[in-house]
Amino acid sequence: MVADVANPSDEASADGARILVVNPNTSTEMTERIAETADRAAGPQTEIITDCPDRGPESLESFYEYHLATGGLLETVAEYQGDVDGVVVGCFGDPGLYPLKEVLNVPVVGVAEASMGIATVLGHRFSILVALKRAVPMMENLVRQYGLNQRLATVEATGLSVLDLERDPEQTLVELTAAGERATDSGAEVFVLGCSGMSGYEEELANRLGAPVIDPIANAVVTAEMVHRQGLTQNKTGLWGTPPTKEIRGDLLGDSFASE
Amino acid sequence: MVADVANPSDEASADGARILVVNPNTSTEMTERIAETADRAAGPQTEIITDCPDRGPESLESFYEYHLATGGLLETVAEYQGDVDGVVVGCFGDPGLYPLKEVLNVPVVGVAEASMGIATVLGHRFSILVALKRAVPMMENLVRQYGLNQRLATVEATGLSVLDLERDPEQTLVELTAAGERATDSGAEVFVLGCSGMSGYEEELANRLGAPVIDPIANAVVTAEMVHRQGLTQNKTGLWGTPPTKEIRGDLLGDSFASE
Amino acid sequence: MVADVANPSDEASADGARILVVNPNTSTEMTERIAETADRAAGPQTEIITDCPDRGPESLESFYEYHLATGGLLETVAEYQGDVDGVVVGCFGDPGLYPLKEVLNVPVVGVAEASMGIATVLGHRFSILVALKRAVPMMENLVRQYGLNQRLATVEATGLSVLDLERDPEQTLVELTAAGERATDSGAEVFVLGCSGMSGYEEELANRLGAPVIDPIANAVVTAEMVHRQGLTQNKTGLWGTPPTKEIRGDLLGDSFASE
Amino acid sequence: MVADVANPSDEASADGARILVVNPNTSTEMTERIAETADRAAGPQTEIITDCPDRGPESLESFYEYHLATGGLLETVAEYQGDVDGVVVGCFGDPGLYPLKEVLNVPVVGVAEASMGIATVLGHRFSILVALKRAVPMMENLVRQYGLNQRLATVEATGLSVLDLERDPEQTLVELTAAGERATDSGAEVFVLGCSGMSGYEEELANRLGAPVIDPIANAVVTAEMVHRQGLTQNKTGLWGTPPTKEIRGDLLGDSFASE
Amino acid sequence: MVADVANPSDEASADGARILVVNPNTSTEMTERIAETADRAAGPQTEIITDCPDRGPESLESFYEYHLATGGLLETVAEYQGDVDGVVVGCFGDPGLYPLKEVLNVPVVGVAEASMGIATVLGHRFSILVALKRAVPMMENLVRQYGLNQRLATVEATGLSVLDLERDPEQTLVELTAAGERATDSGAEVFVLGCSGMSGYEEELANRLGAPVIDPIANAVVTAEMVHRQGLTQNKTGLWGTPPTKEIRGDLLGDSFASE
Amino acid sequence: MVADVANPSDEASADGARILVVNPNTSTEMTERIAETADRAAGPQTEIITDCPDRGPESLESFYEYHLATGGLLETVAEYQGDVDGVVVGCFGDPGLYPLKEVLNVPVVGVAEASMGIATVLGHRFSILVALKRAVPMMENLVRQYGLNQRLATVEATGLSVLDLERDPEQTLVELTAAGERATDSGAEVFVLGCSGMSGYEEELANRLGAPVIDPIANAVVTAEMVHRQGLTQNKTGLWGTPPTKEIRGDLLGDSFASE
Repeated sequence: MVADVANPSDEASADGARILVVNPNTSTEMTERIAETADRAAGPQTEIITDCPDRGPESLESFYEYHLATGGLLETVAEYQGDVDGVVVGCFGDPGLYPLKEVLNVPVVGVAEASMGIATVLGHRFSILVALKRAVPMMENLVRQYGLNQRLATVEATGLSVLDLERDPEQTLVELTAAGERATDSGAEVFVLGCSGMSGYEEELANRLGAPVIDPIANAVVTAEMVHRQGLTQNKTGLWGTPPTKEIRGDLLGDSFASE
Repeated sequence: MVADVANPSDEASADGARILVVNPNTSTEMTERIAETADRAAGPQTEIITDCPDRGPESLESFYEYHLATGGLLETVAEYQGDVDGVVVGCFGDPGLYPLKEVLNVPVVGVAEASMGIATVLGHRFSILVALKRAVPMMENLVRQYGLNQRLATVEATGLSVLDLERDPEQTLVELTAAGERATDSGAEVFVLGCSGMSGYEEELANRLGAPVIDPIANAVVTAEMVHRQGLTQNKTGLWGTPPTKEIRGDLLGDSFASE
Repeated sequence: MVADVANPSDEASADGARILVVNPNTSTEMTERIAETADRAAGPQTEIITDCPDRGPESLESFYEYHLATGGLLETVAEYQGDVDGVVVGCFGDPGLYPLKEVLNVPVVGVAEASMGIATVLGHRFSILVALKRAVPMMENLVRQYGLNQRLATVEATGLSVLDLERDPEQTLVELTAAGERATDSGAEVFVLGCSGMSGYEEELANRLGAPVIDPIANAVVTAEMVHRQGLTQNKTGLWGTPPTKEIRGDLLGDSFASE
Repeated sequence: MVADVANPSDEASADGARILVVNPNTSTEMTERIAETADRAAGPQTEIITDCPDRGPESLESFYEYHLATGGLLETVAEYQGDVDGVVVGCFGDPGLYPLKEVLNVPVVGVAEASMGIATVLGHRFSILVALKRAVPMMENLVRQYGLNQRLATVEATGLSVLDLERDPEQTLVELTAAGERATDSGAEVFVLGCSGMSGYEEELANRLGAPVIDPIANAVVTAEMVHRQGLTQNKTGLWGTPPTKEIRGDLLGDSFASE
Repeated sequence: MVADVANPSDEASADGARILVVNPNTSTEMTERIAETADRAAGPQTEIITDCPDRGPESLESFYEYHLATGGLLETVAEYQGDVDGVVVGCFGDPGLYPLKEVLNVPVVGVAEASMGIATVLGHRFSILVALKRAVPMMENLVRQYGLNQRLATVEATGLSVLDLERDPEQTLVELTAAGERATDSGAEVFVLGCSGMSGYEEELANRLGAPVIDPIANAVVTAEMVHRQGLTQNKTGLWGTPPTKEIRGDLLGDSFASE
Repeated sequence: MVADVANPSDEASADGARILVVNPNTSTEMTERIAETADRAAGPQTEIITDCPDRGPESLESFYEYHLATGGLLETVAEYQGDVDGVVVGCFGDPGLYPLKEVLNVPVVGVAEASMGIATVLGHRFSILVALKRAVPMMENLVRQYGLNQRLATVEATGLSVLDLERDPEQTLVELTAAGERATDSGAEVFVLGCSGMSGYEEELANRLGAPVIDPIANAVVTAEMVHRQGLTQNKTGLWGTPPTKEIRGDLLGDSFASE
């Protein structure tokens, strides 16, 4: 796929960072919106490349689809291996994040993990706003896996599908605000947009709720820059240690890193 | 792949359960050992089918390999869809477990989750014995995701690779016992063999440690039977709800359930 | 008391397990219902013996009554000592469970602990449905003691007394369904019948809620079989180590194991 | 049994509190030592009554013995019902505590629960020093049940039996100090003597460790006074609600409160 | 400031304790009410001194005001250094508590920490009743810092300001009762008055709620007595170790202990 | 005090951020070192101002000193109020952080909170390396307050005082490496330099440990930039809501924000 590239200047590649933002689903509309958000968020010295796989589901709403998407995600990232200074996985459930953290030697940042990290600096407890009810236990499971449940207020479903989110902006804002107010009643002080389709609503929603609203794509891009600028990378000998070299049978999608 | 089938009697299929035990890696030696363990553990009315994918890694020691294995795992399970009453995922990290719980309407049991469930009945705190140090944070991460860390003593590495485990049984017992004794000093009362290559050592290790030792394959097989016998299945509308039907681009490994 | 015995065949005692299911209260009606449930749940090779004490409270709704019941429970179990392969304590608060785990060398399974162990395999979070409000903190206390609160959604009271549960099945179903729906709103995906008087409603309630409903008696019986089949027993040197031999003054109810 | 009574003055009964301290085991030597400690700890307006059951185990080191002791404990307390303003259960595992909290309308204080409550005021994390290793998981289980594990450093076994504790005071101090130093290395700042046989060593141990050492008997006595002086009692409608009146079959030890 | 002194008898200073109760805000009305409560709660041998700073905020409702108050609090306490046997910090957020625990060698007790310690003895879960919503996350933060969140039901705001609390006693009772009933529905069994302005309502509120209600000032006074009587003090080498001597630039409010 | 100012260009103030980094102690040497670190970490569009109070302790090793420092810290920050886009509190215990978050309407970032937020992206569990043993419980208390203890491995003391840290760089590295290796054995994968005096060792220590090492000053500076660039600020109505306006008696250090 022809990737979107922002700030492709020489200076950027000289002093700054080249950050690859991968949308793990195959929706080009979504990828474009992610590219816009990422470009806006990036610093002037940062070159943003946004791409998505050619194959896989159009949207990701289950662990099964996370798996289906991960092969294409790995392939897409493999094309840029060695050419980028950091990778952002642009879907809120952080699909494929741990495999990527293992196979790459540059920082890999999940939009969910990064938004939780910064949320702890912005308020007592955070709430994740998601599209459909189906996502509530998935996000609770993720927060518990990340060990951050003591700072979670609730995961709130808007009741809007990803498609709905795009169709009627005003209705979307109404539902996001209602979900945010329910979360506020449960003690939420920071809101995380738990679906890439919600990108762009953060400012108006923040106004309506009178509280900080995190756009996970924007936040993960600046987190990747910030980790890169400090010369940091995920630990490569522990939870995300480089996978051992071994025989792999068959011609696998997503085995692009196997020969490393 | 030609699967191993035990107890293929008519009675079994009439009154009992047909349980598919899938080894997610491609090692046929490992698959055979798993088949032996599963057959021995199964009740007389249970028919055990053991199989493994044709493609994927020979052993699974990282999240990356978990992903590489999951495509073949899903394909393998898809061949038996509708013909079995339950599925056991036979690798301790429970790779591919959540996708399978979503796409199937019969009980899907992970060997790790089931061993933790029964460990709480057998002692105050449990310890997972793993091959190499690399697996320690992976298992700690899994226990935390499952919310069972309050009953965990430690994850202990034997320092033996999967290959070592097979080469020298006496040395393996010596190292397993040493790891078990370290865990005992940390308060472990129940031991879980955290690697399929350790299957078969449970009895002798239990004698040496004077404590219950769980073989996760055996335990998951009987757990699947037991869930089936009670007419239970994982909830299909929450964390593991059936994935929505949607367009999938490309010819994906592991998309065998997409058309459900 | 003349115990109920199911499957008293020679084969059963030869290859299978003899499981004693003790109802710790003195209600023979409840004991009969438990016997029916246990017999239905047991495998063909398993012999089920159901019994209850001659003295003690008719139903158990407080820690005080748990104590009053434990003497008779221990006496009843003592009569079968050496003759059974496993014991199930058939009251949801697991009264007398830890003493029994200490004094016996065969697996002792509490219906509450076993139902929580399997609930983690069936859904993200579970809810315990209890009779009266009085039981809510008792069960919360139990779940916290067992270290499983991260997987608990709520404990929900139906508002029906044990007597009510028996009187009007349709009203009982209505109340159980209402409690289950409240729990669903709090994120419950698996339901545990937290009172033996609810036995028999699991199937219809599962239909109404569209979710797995665990009958703790049935589940504990198959858990005991499964532990026995694997040759496992609770650790006998730690939390439930065999009590030391010492002088006991007086002629105590429930001291039947003292001379071991 | 003829109880030990301190400060039996009229003033005491007029303005002060009558506190019953029950040693749940049948050792009169232990009961006398507890009486000395309790008398020393009590305020001038407090009348202390110390007593122990006529039947039951001489010392309590298992859940089984906790049960055997509870009948006599309840009987003993029943003799004083209506005549005392508060009850202290004088064995560190708090045997019989919850039944007593239910059946009495005056404050009932367990020596373990009270020592943990005050330990949080005296240091960051506390350690419980116990006699034999057997008690370590029992106390960890208790701390988890009480929900105070975030303030626990470790439970440390001295390796001395209750008998040893009495035989050689200097050796006892050496072992207590060694256990305390191990606990200090694990972050303990407050020490709780987890066995009534350790009573009397608190001062010298505090000097050697340079840290506060809590004698649970003394502390529970003053806690009971303090709760009484504030006119407080445990909630009687929740976890420790008054047991319902119902038919009890047989002539039970420990059913003295059944007719309330 | 001229402090209120109760029980200034020789006997008191001979055998009993001199407890300094400091109100960290500058409201003399509040200080007088605290003095009344403290005097009523103290034992006959205890001398109570109540005082407050000359400068600082009139009431404390934010961390900023906690800081502004702490200088005066330290100065006030410094005046009594060496003359008192214990110090109570009389504002529910425990402002300045940790600095005071460090600089003093006598027991320093915070009203919040002490009320949580005793609440665990009185019921399954406690609730803190606060004035305005603003205080809810502050108290949740405090409970989490103290590691007692497993015993917390909720923090409930009455919606009444400190001023409102004083103006209309009957309306205050109505709102406190309503907040207490909401907390009861969330599982609270013990209630803690989370604002000194609520002092005096505990008895009537306890009647209305049918549950124990803790007045934190009264409770902290008896806790300080009780710690003193046992010869205990907070650990002085760990979390609250004596601050090192070092150069301090400038003439600081609150540096009164710097030369120790 | 004459503050250190880096990048004071017009462009910076036009498009970028002005970040105030306050060293809460009065050591100018330390402030200079912090300035160097902050300048190196800042992006080209960011103007860094570093300052410290004129009065207060030279170093901060206790809660008492945290208080003594906070007045000067608030005064120092007040001088820049309205002129900066974000504030970093440059001492690892985050003294004065919550008051500053309340009184300012721009992002206030603590070096400890920010380093924990990013540590979760870089490895499974983190360890904080501190100077003296005294700091261990202080940091454990902080991590628990922040609700991040599930991702903490250990807090490790190097045994070096702040002065030692400056005197002998090679010895410092040896001790830091030794502490890091002990932490690695306890499962640490990410290391946080828990003392500003350790700044500058991160690169060499990272080489020796083969793991990411976070310099909290550098990391907090980029975190503040990143929060500012996203237009985010801490929630101003919850835990860190703007303090109410009220009468303050006396002329207080640190009351500079009172008239807001």
